[in-house]
Amino acid sequence: MIIVHKYGGTSVATTEKIMNIAKYLGSVKDSGNDVVVVVSAMGKTTDALIKLAHEITDKPDLREMDRLMSTGEQQTIALLSIALQTLGYEAISLTGAQAGIKTSGHYTKNRIEDINGKEIKEHLSKGKIVVVAGFQGVNEAGDVTTLGRGGSDTSAVALAAALGGKCEIYTDVDGIYSIDPRVYKDAKKLPVISYDEMMELAFLGAGVMEPRAVELGSKYGVEIYVGKSLGEKNGTIITSVEKTKENKEMEQKVITGVSINENMVMVNVEEIPTNAQNVYEIFEKAEANGINIDIISQNDVTSHHGSFAFTCPKTDIAALEKIGAEIEAEFPRTSFIINPYITKVSVVGIGLISNIGVAAKMFRILSENDISFHQVSTSEISISLVVDEVMGKKVAELFAKEFDL
Amino acid sequence: MIIVHKYGGTSVATTEKIMNIAKYLGSVKDSGNDVVVVVSAMGKTTDALIKLAHEITDKPDLREMDRLMSTGEQQTIALLSIALQTLGYEAISLTGAQAGIKTSGHYTKNRIEDINGKEIKEHLSKGKIVVVAGFQGVNEAGDVTTLGRGGSDTSAVALAAALGGKCEIYTDVDGIYSIDPRVYKDAKKLPVISYDEMMELAFLGAGVMEPRAVELGSKYGVEIYVGKSLGEKNGTIITSVEKTKENKEMEQKVITGVSINENMVMVNVEEIPTNAQNVYEIFEKAEANGINIDIISQNDVTSHHGSFAFTCPKTDIAALEKIGAEIEAEFPRTSFIINPYITKVSVVGIGLISNIGVAAKMFRILSENDISFHQVSTSEISISLVVDEVMGKKVAELFAKEFDL
Repeated sequence: MIIVHKYGGTSVATTEKIMNIAKYLGSVKDSGNDVVVVVSAMGKTTDALIKLAHEITDKPDLREMDRLMSTGEQQTIALLSIALQTLGYEAISLTGAQAGIKTSGHYTKNRIEDINGKEIKEHLSKGKIVVVAGFQGVNEAGDVTTLGRGGSDTSAVALAAALGGKCEIYTDVDGIYSIDPRVYKDAKKLPVISYDEMMELAFLGAGVMEPRAVELGSKYGVEIYVGKSLGEKNGTIITSVEKTKENKEMEQKVITGVSINENMVMVNVEEIPTNAQNVYEIFEKAEANGINIDIISQNDVTSHHGSFAFTCPKTDIAALEKIGAEIEAEFPRTSFIINPYITKVSVVGIGLISNIGVAAKMFRILSENDISFHQVSTSEISISLVVDEVMGKKVAELFAKEFDL
Repeated sequence: MIIVHKYGGTSVATTEKIMNIAKYLGSVKDSGNDVVVVVSAMGKTTDALIKLAHEITDKPDLREMDRLMSTGEQQTIALLSIALQTLGYEAISLTGAQAGIKTSGHYTKNRIEDINGKEIKEHLSKGKIVVVAGFQGVNEAGDVTTLGRGGSDTSAVALAAALGGKCEIYTDVDGIYSIDPRVYKDAKKLPVISYDEMMELAFLGAGVMEPRAVELGSKYGVEIYVGKSLGEKNGTIITSVEKTKENKEMEQKVITGVSINENMVMVNVEEIPTNAQNVYEIFEKAEANGINIDIISQNDVTSHHGSFAFTCPKTDIAALEKIGAEIEAEFPRTSFIINPYITKVSVVGIGLISNIGVAAKMFRILSENDISFHQVSTSEISISLVVDEVMGKKVAELFAKEFDL
């Protein structure tokens, strides 16, 4: 069995921790498995590198940022390989490019296009433990690229898919909770969750897993384990709905989890001439700047001037300001207002699809507690609300109590 | 004119220093030159990375060490490119591999085989300042390799040779001195020095320039400037003998410089059966371990058991110990004694070749001061002596006074 392990920055923060991981990987190898391991940069290395660039300018070139940020993982793979070799295991480090991870898209936010697992398989067939730099790949121009924050999860799941293996993600939380335990102290850890639910939770802001990683897992049927302790399997398994149901307790809950995303901004575009072209222009500009638009809502579409709102990640604020200035220059009556003081609260569950009462319950709770909301968005298995930042945690807590999470 | 600049670790230790370099490079570009710049890792980054590896083991795998050590330069090229772009210049960073620097040899001590300057020339033709990672290249296996300490000098001169340009090396000393000013306070800075003399001085231990870099400069006729201050040209030019003579003062000195090398060890191999095979075996082992043998001396060659001695860099001590154990196991009577307490003192000058009195003067000085020596070695333009470490500086000072440096 090929097992792709992934260790985040906290897990590899010191050479002592790297040595512990090497020992554990050795034991997994000794049990007869083929071992591939994906690692992040040590501790806060990536943040420190970003800080250096920001000492020079607020808006560094993104190709150069990818070059800069990709160095941390190269250090960790070398050190982990050395640790494994010191314990007597054959090990070899590979950069994203050497591991055959081809990417495309915007620098600092590349997507994996293809993985050629040939090189890795050759090393595995020689009994080696293969140590791959997470968070990075190579684009068609031959430049190193990065996959955005949480990109190492994506690297690991994509490699497991390409190699036909399982994926185990070791992180600084001990599994997936129905709601962030820092928000709601009675939060329960889930032994198993379906890809769809996890994807919604991740996409909606639960910081544990990168949504693209879960999406890949779902697409290629890669079972993903998320946990903390080496050796003990008391974390959460992310798998298909069928396997989730086999594993779950008898009593099916309608809601699996509540997530809170505080890293969003909401943009209100007010008094813009309402025709499809104008709206398209804004979203085209957003796309060109690599901004991920989340919830879109529109009103007043019957008048000549209307307004609409959308949310996107806080990290895109500089690009938003640029777009806002362009839009306001083009349409003098229009205001492009960026509001960072919002939080998105979402409830997620496979049961939602067949239970129309959930939305009603949510709005009843908001009403009883006199809480207003800015936007609402629904998918088959989730309902998200944008509320004022100060109300975010309270709303999540109310929902967690109501749905017994 | 293509000018290849090189900045060492001290020069790029902070983002503030990187910004200053960017400003200076901009002014060089504005004067109508094509600018390529080679940089080292920031400050003590490489040392810190080596320390991390040594926290895990004394003898890390060298392929992984190259991976680890090559990351520092990748960070600097990204930051310097960002700084140049912030000042409004078009700039692009290239790794050694992207710059077309092909290497071969032992990991951590690779040699440049070939440089394909095509990619760099394309960027230059578009008006870009090209920022290249020093100290690194790529081998046939596609692995990143490093060129050994001082390798960034070699990168810079090799690029200047490949591109048909000049080379300017900015370092933490303000030029080449006839003798290390820390050893002899009246040392004089040389405005110009020939490749051969510089090569001897560098090879013999003057820390300012990597000898391979000077060798390349000589081979391809690349004029090398070595200095400290940005903008002021008060350093030293390394060039051909003819140009050196044009530049030098009327009065020709026999000796151009004295160098001291304290980073050497001397090995005495005593009581070894004297046949060519045995000696060959030792040097073959040394070669296989990437040890650079320097001075070799032999005596007692007429008896069945003889002894010989050689010097090599202190950094090879671990490999020497391994070889020593093997040799002593094979030849029970033989002792393989590693002596790190030695210093090599050399005098260098083009004039030496036609002045047989210099060696006589040197030995007279040693005799008058009751200083004994272990080895002596001569080349056309240098004479080197291995003396006890405690006597090294005194010997250099005596020579400096005698030859009026």
